[in-house]
Amino acid sequence: MTSVKDMLDTYPADLGGVDEQAVARCIEACVACAQACTACADACLAGGMVGELTKCIRTDMDCADVCNATAAVLSRHTGYDADITRAVLRACATVCGACADECESHADVHDHCRVCAEACRGCEQACDDLLASLG
Amino acid sequence: MTSVKDMLDTYPADLGGVDEQAVARCIEACVACAQACTACADACLAGGMVGELTKCIRTDMDCADVCNATAAVLSRHTGYDADITRAVLRACATVCGACADECESHADVHDHCRVCAEACRGCEQACDDLLASLG
Amino acid sequence: MTSVKDMLDTYPADLGGVDEQAVARCIEACVACAQACTACADACLAGGMVGELTKCIRTDMDCADVCNATAAVLSRHTGYDADITRAVLRACATVCGACADECESHADVHDHCRVCAEACRGCEQACDDLLASLG
Amino acid sequence: MTSVKDMLDTYPADLGGVDEQAVARCIEACVACAQACTACADACLAGGMVGELTKCIRTDMDCADVCNATAAVLSRHTGYDADITRAVLRACATVCGACADECESHADVHDHCRVCAEACRGCEQACDDLLASLG
Repeated sequence: MTSVKDMLDTYPADLGGVDEQAVARCIEACVACAQACTACADACLAGGMVGELTKCIRTDMDCADVCNATAAVLSRHTGYDADITRAVLRACATVCGACADECESHADVHDHCRVCAEACRGCEQACDDLLASLG
Repeated sequence: MTSVKDMLDTYPADLGGVDEQAVARCIEACVACAQACTACADACLAGGMVGELTKCIRTDMDCADVCNATAAVLSRHTGYDADITRAVLRACATVCGACADECESHADVHDHCRVCAEACRGCEQACDDLLASLG
Repeated sequence: MTSVKDMLDTYPADLGGVDEQAVARCIEACVACAQACTACADACLAGGMVGELTKCIRTDMDCADVCNATAAVLSRHTGYDADITRAVLRACATVCGACADECESHADVHDHCRVCAEACRGCEQACDDLLASLG
Repeated sequence: MTSVKDMLDTYPADLGGVDEQAVARCIEACVACAQACTACADACLAGGMVGELTKCIRTDMDCADVCNATAAVLSRHTGYDADITRAVLRACATVCGACADECESHADVHDHCRVCAEACRGCEQACDDLLASLG
């Protein structure tokens, strides 16, 4: 997704000292995690073991919703409010961590949970890194 | 929106001691706030004073995204994870409070900001009330 | 949701001859349908018969996503493009109709599907009514 | 976004003859377009010419909402309903085409509109290609 960086580079005002690389990485991680979680919830429905995966499906759906909201908030720079960014990143790191834990517990049986867990863990880390860079 | 309560009442398993009225009120507040913020951002574009309302538009869009995600998380009860619910409610209360502050500062000039500020403040309160009921 | 009508009434420019009542009803129907479908998918996961409800869960999730997008598009009036509104309403009516059909087929066994089917059918009708009013 | 393809590859049931490459390309195009449009709306707010870009901002927001819904629908394969997929793809192609037209009209002045127009046009094409492959 080269357009994430291209959109940051063409923003027509001052980005206010934000760590552009950390922002771009976090947007990309949120977007990838939201898609993986949506697909993982669907794969959980399909594999014939759905009765054991109901918590995984629910957590996937929460994670997709929160990651999509976080990607959108991070894609905006006008009228920046650090309190909003921090609050949203904290929520996203929490949900991604919980979803990574849940998917990891099925990763040896379900390949889609293994792929999704990596996306969730990567997004949790990207949110934590961006939070740290905000001071 | 009678269906919010009807969907809670027809949930086929134990809701785990959650305060059903507080959940229903918070879902309704999130849904109303998301719609009001989406409409307020658009109204800000239309009124001929958009140059003074860029921060309001941006905050409206953040608030709509976070309220929609929160409404979805609160509409799910299967595989409940209190940490996820609390993290999302805290983020939502923060964004709604910030958006209420911003819209209130324009409420005497822009009627749409006045209506939207009420929706945001109501949602902030509903999130705080639900957080308090979770212990 | 009185704020849907209040936001329409405080829009600071000409609404361009749109049927305000039909727009307000359709926004409210989309918002209620999205919430009901999110809750129905979750209730399907919880009731001990999830293996029979996988198509219902999937259709619920599609319907929630499309209704949320439609509610947002209809909440905007600035820079109106009738082709966008029509295309989105047609997609929403299609998804709501399919989801109503699916939920109705489970309505005698699952009360949550009965409630959700009513929300979906109501939204399908509201989309069709608004499409008809657009000419 | 290697995870889009990885999630398709780990889906535990038959994908029903769908063109996997066309699906993956369309999901990636929708996700990139949604992010670019969210960022473009924000960049339009920031550049000091917002009064001339109100239609662009509005169309960007519609496009982001519809692309996000389309990416989610395309990420699900369980309980496939070709009518839903077709209806959503048609709406997405329409909105992306309209947003590409709007952004292209500002592309010589605003670099962010130029980048965004490419994302929209790419997504319109990916939706049309996937529609064609569905027969």
